[in-house]
Amino acid sequence: MASVLRCGSKLRTAAHMPAARALSTTARRAANEKPFFPNEPAAPTVSTPIPGPKNKAAAAELDEVFDVRSLNMLADYHKSIGNYIADLDGNQLLDVYAQIASIPVGYNNPHLRQVSQSEEMITSLINRPALGNFPSSDWSHILRTGILRAAPKGLNQVFTAMAGSDANETAYKAAFMYYRQLQRGGPEVDFTAEEIESSMNNQGPGSPQLSILSFKSAFHGRLFGSLSTTRSKPIHKMDIPAFDWPQATFPMLKYPLEEHVQENAAEEKRCLEEVERLIKEYHNPVAAVMVEPIQSEGGDNHASPAFFQGLRDITKRNKVLFIVDEVQTGKAQTAGYYFGNPALRPNKPYRQFNTWMGDPSRALIFRGIIEEIERHDLVENTRITGDYLYAGLERLAKQYPEHFQNLRGKNQGTFIAWDTPKRDQFLAKAKTVGVNIGGSGAQAVRLRPMLIFQKHHADILLESIEKTINLL
Amino acid sequence: MASVLRCGSKLRTAAHMPAARALSTTARRAANEKPFFPNEPAAPTVSTPIPGPKNKAAAAELDEVFDVRSLNMLADYHKSIGNYIADLDGNQLLDVYAQIASIPVGYNNPHLRQVSQSEEMITSLINRPALGNFPSSDWSHILRTGILRAAPKGLNQVFTAMAGSDANETAYKAAFMYYRQLQRGGPEVDFTAEEIESSMNNQGPGSPQLSILSFKSAFHGRLFGSLSTTRSKPIHKMDIPAFDWPQATFPMLKYPLEEHVQENAAEEKRCLEEVERLIKEYHNPVAAVMVEPIQSEGGDNHASPAFFQGLRDITKRNKVLFIVDEVQTGKAQTAGYYFGNPALRPNKPYRQFNTWMGDPSRALIFRGIIEEIERHDLVENTRITGDYLYAGLERLAKQYPEHFQNLRGKNQGTFIAWDTPKRDQFLAKAKTVGVNIGGSGAQAVRLRPMLIFQKHHADILLESIEKTINLL
Repeated sequence: MASVLRCGSKLRTAAHMPAARALSTTARRAANEKPFFPNEPAAPTVSTPIPGPKNKAAAAELDEVFDVRSLNMLADYHKSIGNYIADLDGNQLLDVYAQIASIPVGYNNPHLRQVSQSEEMITSLINRPALGNFPSSDWSHILRTGILRAAPKGLNQVFTAMAGSDANETAYKAAFMYYRQLQRGGPEVDFTAEEIESSMNNQGPGSPQLSILSFKSAFHGRLFGSLSTTRSKPIHKMDIPAFDWPQATFPMLKYPLEEHVQENAAEEKRCLEEVERLIKEYHNPVAAVMVEPIQSEGGDNHASPAFFQGLRDITKRNKVLFIVDEVQTGKAQTAGYYFGNPALRPNKPYRQFNTWMGDPSRALIFRGIIEEIERHDLVENTRITGDYLYAGLERLAKQYPEHFQNLRGKNQGTFIAWDTPKRDQFLAKAKTVGVNIGGSGAQAVRLRPMLIFQKHHADILLESIEKTINLL
Repeated sequence: MASVLRCGSKLRTAAHMPAARALSTTARRAANEKPFFPNEPAAPTVSTPIPGPKNKAAAAELDEVFDVRSLNMLADYHKSIGNYIADLDGNQLLDVYAQIASIPVGYNNPHLRQVSQSEEMITSLINRPALGNFPSSDWSHILRTGILRAAPKGLNQVFTAMAGSDANETAYKAAFMYYRQLQRGGPEVDFTAEEIESSMNNQGPGSPQLSILSFKSAFHGRLFGSLSTTRSKPIHKMDIPAFDWPQATFPMLKYPLEEHVQENAAEEKRCLEEVERLIKEYHNPVAAVMVEPIQSEGGDNHASPAFFQGLRDITKRNKVLFIVDEVQTGKAQTAGYYFGNPALRPNKPYRQFNTWMGDPSRALIFRGIIEEIERHDLVENTRITGDYLYAGLERLAKQYPEHFQNLRGKNQGTFIAWDTPKRDQFLAKAKTVGVNIGGSGAQAVRLRPMLIFQKHHADILLESIEKTINLL
């Protein structure tokens, strides 16, 4: 059936970077060297222990009403700028964690400030619509000039959501409805009386025991459906009921890649075979395969383009949907949504629906981010800075081999990571030399600078990493 | 154990109205009669068929990228004001549906406009924090002066979320973690190796087969966990895998209440017995009971205070949590969250966590709403208008008994509904006389005016209802 092939095409969740616009190489280099934030500090400032006395007091006050045991640091966002995050004690840290990789164009970005002051924004904040019933008359325009400019070819439909978790879950719902529609024989075949009755009792056939296949170490969110596909850490999953859904092994590649070509290809082949076997054999039939382009929360695990092509081939062959979770690789763009095509619309209205269906004010911020990325060619900036940073890290890795294992993310912009035995100490000490860095998985240091991270920031980061190592 | 009793106390989700401040009766009456929005239209304007030509064209354009089959009407929010929603064709409808009962203080409320233009708002829009890791230094202040002023006595902790669905699901997660902690023997008892391993495979004991008990006709959201407790309509649930969780019967009261006192009491008793039996016997043990104070989406089903006290007694006696979903009765306040107490914090950090954990810009709007409610004593306004409106509806019900069955919501402010045999026609025709009204369940007309709805609006509504009936 033609529709299978068409709809099997990528159903993407969350953001990905739009293609860079054409600019001459010289113009690009010049753009990269001119600071995007002229008022940024020249270097980090650390004048108290972190957390300092004011931050400690504020955290204690917050703790009375809001759980702060996961607190990293309280930030003063009025004083944060560009790549620098400020705290209450006057410390200014170079931030290469970026709100768990969720913000892309710098603190207090002046263009986003303009967007926030616009009449469109004010109206959307104070007149929050139920988007499925009463969208604003400019909603089509906001989507077309914003979110949809980041849509991959062929996926011209957007379903807006609030965050990554619910974007993923609505994509799963689309997949289940699509899968059952195929089984029924098409959109025109109506539900049976048995389906209608059993669905109200949470039983099959109306509530079918279908599944989403995800990968070991994957992270797709923490609500009940998304958490059933998340396989990152027990602390994320403990005590929460989960669906009986299958997990396949994600390739664990060996580095440097060029020294393990055959081994890695064999590993990927083995994982692909496991995926296909699970699709064919798992007792709860698989409606979709869910995968991150780079496993992020789970430890910065990369796979080759051939692996993803292999996954796509398997899903096509087996008539299951292929969902790509780009929440972290796309930096979330401060909104949640998934892209699909018209065949993925359920056969009746109100099947994929909720009261708010996203937030127009966040869609306006998203549009501002896209504009900022295009205006400054930030994808190209990130490529240039990333190559420069990676080369610097390779030098450090040679110098300090005991602190650098499996350096990875070459040619992936600044999406770089490595494993290190004293990881948590490393992250804590990095703050004392002025850098805010995050970890992923059990052992990885994950770099997630924003897209406005430039070579002069990379120099500071490299120097700070070396200083930190020497403090361990 | 003391902690059971303490934590068994209400775990609330979403908003409820804060108590009205003291004002003299005369001052209240005067406040109610002075229009809150002096620039509101004096009456609805309907100058084209609805949808009119401009709205039709805009809907067709939107449909290319966004599913509009659930469209009610496209709105021009720049021109909407107070209780009146405007469309693109110059029509101005009196809105008693209020974005599926999700906005409380009127279109283009001037105080919310001020809030939206504040530096706090701009900073929160452009520097979106990961609230669990990097909250802003004024987050405690924003919570204390806003959301927490709506917290019920004894529930001094808030977990912020994005919308009703995920607020409910995080409350379920809190309940499951709490339940398992009791089973283990307290917060200090660590997870076993078996629990840790099995949780990663979505199997017990780490991912336990526990349940949330909800009620027939309930609506708690449409993500996978919340949808498993939603029992409103098959179209909401069809084809989506669901957890095997129990449902109890919600009392179906007979009206007028004063004529069916004994029958209704017997019905409520029967339902309470069913709840207790399910808690004691359901094969997947019940960790919490979830209930709406008034079933809204499911048809405006009310129960007596005695029923809710009975539920509370049963949950206490059986050591399960009692969760109250106030998303619709509290008008959602344009944000999602749940209230709890310190004993409901999980025993370790990062168990109840996600990247954003809500949105500070929506928390600022929430605070603005609370301020507006208090300044104009809108709870009292709604009581006064509601009594007036209800009396008018009682008159209409006598005059048109074939169009009014089970009129309900007396002494419930403007949260009023009735059943009518030609419900969908009634709703469609109401638009032609200038009123935007919603339905609930299969037969109910549900009124959900905003809190700024006054007697003169009630007069227009009553007149329009009568006109609509005469068009059927």
